[in-house]
Formats: sequence, C-alpha cells, structure tokens
Amino acid sequence: MRLDPEECRRRLAGAPVARLASTGADGRPHLVPVTFALRDDVLIIGIDQKPKTTTNLRRLRNIAENPRVALLADHYEPDWTRLWWVRADGTAVVEHDGSGREAAVAELVGRYPQYRRDPPRGPMIMITVDRWTGWAASAAPA
Amino acid sequence: MRLDPEECRRRLAGAPVARLASTGADGRPHLVPVTFALRDDVLIIGIDQKPKTTTNLRRLRNIAENPRVALLADHYEPDWTRLWWVRADGTAVVEHDGSGREAAVAELVGRYPQYRRDPPRGPMIMITVDRWTGWAASAAPA
Repeated sequence: MRLDPEECRRRLAGAPVARLASTGADGRPHLVPVTFALRDDVLIIGIDQKPKTTTNLRRLRNIAENPRVALLADHYEPDWTRLWWVRADGTAVVEHDGSGREAAVAELVGRYPQYRRDPPRGPMIMITVDRWTGWAASAAPA
Repeated sequence: MRLDPEECRRRLAGAPVARLASTGADGRPHLVPVTFALRDDVLIIGIDQKPKTTTNLRRLRNIAENPRVALLADHYEPDWTRLWWVRADGTAVVEHDGSGREAAVAELVGRYPQYRRDPPRGPMIMITVDRWTGWAASAAPA
C-alpha cells in the first residue's frame, strides 16, 4: 500500500539512518548512508570532517554539478508483511558557513546524542523535499 | 577504515537488504530497497510482479537509459564505533526471460525462504560490479 506524505514524513523522522543518492555530470549514481534531521520539508545532512578534507567528497561534487538528490529509509525484517520504505526526492544546496549552517548543526546535535561531544565540522547539505513516496507491505503500524 | 574488496563482498553477501540507485536520462537519482543475491561479482535483483505491471517501473526505465547503478548495504546502531557500509558500483542489464533469468530466480529463491512459495515473476536485474568501496568505523568484526 502507498503511504501518504504525512505518513512518509512520520516514518522518515523516526528512522535513525537513511541513504543519500546523488548523481554528478558523469551520470553515475552515488550512494552513502547518512544521519539526518527533518525540519518541515527540509532534510539536513551533515559532513563530519573538517572542510579541508571534504572538498573532494563525491556527494558534494555531485550536488554542485546536479542538485537533484533522493533520500531513502527502509525497514527490513524476515516477516515480509512488515516491510516498508519512504523516499524523499528533492533539491540540495550546501551551506559551508554562516547562521544557516549553525542552525543545521544544532538540529543534528539535538537529534543525535553521539554528536554532542563532537559536532559535525564540515558543510551541511540542505535538501528541500518536493516529493514524498512511500510503501508498506501491510497496514501494520511502523 | 577502508574495507578491501574481499571484505566488502563478505559483508554485502551477509546483508538481507540493500538499496539500489539508478539514474535516468533526466539526471534524477532513484532509490529503492532491494533483496539480492551475489554470485561472483554479479549482483542479482528481482522484480516481484509480473512483467506487464513493471514495464513502467522507474528502475527499469532508468537502466534502459543509463546502465550505471550503485548498490549499498549499511549497518547502523547507536554505538557509532560499530557503523559500516559497503557500496558496489557496476553496470546493469535486465533479463526478461530465458535461462539467464531462470538461474537468477533460483539464486534469489535459494537465498530467501520467503520466495519459495511465491518466486519473483518479473524481469531480473543483473549487475556486473566493477568497483567495491567499503568503510567501517572500527576493526570490530561485522
């Protein structure tokens, strides 16, 4: 069964990890797991390392070449009647510094206690979601 | 720490679910969770539904337009010293019928007891992996 956008947001907001797909000018999709926060329809994804070491990160190069990205969270278990997934399609921008970046870092630190001692030091990826797609094998609550 | 290709294969082969990224001519990445089997350096992914209902599936259209795909498996837990992920980059072909498709269905049915009563009825996606990339937060065994 299809999930409506509100249910998609709810399930994604409860997932601790998702996967970010981006595609550069060469047309090759790139995929990494990410921690994230969702504020309204904006997804926030951090880069842990200092900016100097991230200038060549594939996800950032891809977004510079092509801002269209997709983020997926899914639930797997051997009982396939309980499978579900949610996808957010959107457009990404990268905040390298300033108050937009600081607010995004605060969202991530608020969501993940693991970041409290060591907040993300790199740029922040901000994705404005324009489409929610979701599916569940049954009406079982997630 | 980076994982070598052998360790990448080992960890991916043990994951019950992965995510497939494909990108069509429009440059928009698409992302879905998939069940899969790994035979040598070929990944096998099935489509559950009958071909008639799948002719418009985005992943199949994307592969027809651009055969470059990526597959990702990852491990998440609150203890971030135990995080890891593995990515396979490769080139996909779609087997709509014939002995290649039958052998691929048998691999999936062999791996997933859930398919025994109801094997995948759609085309099979076969991905020849040309690059393994993997990372683990620590040397802890997966």
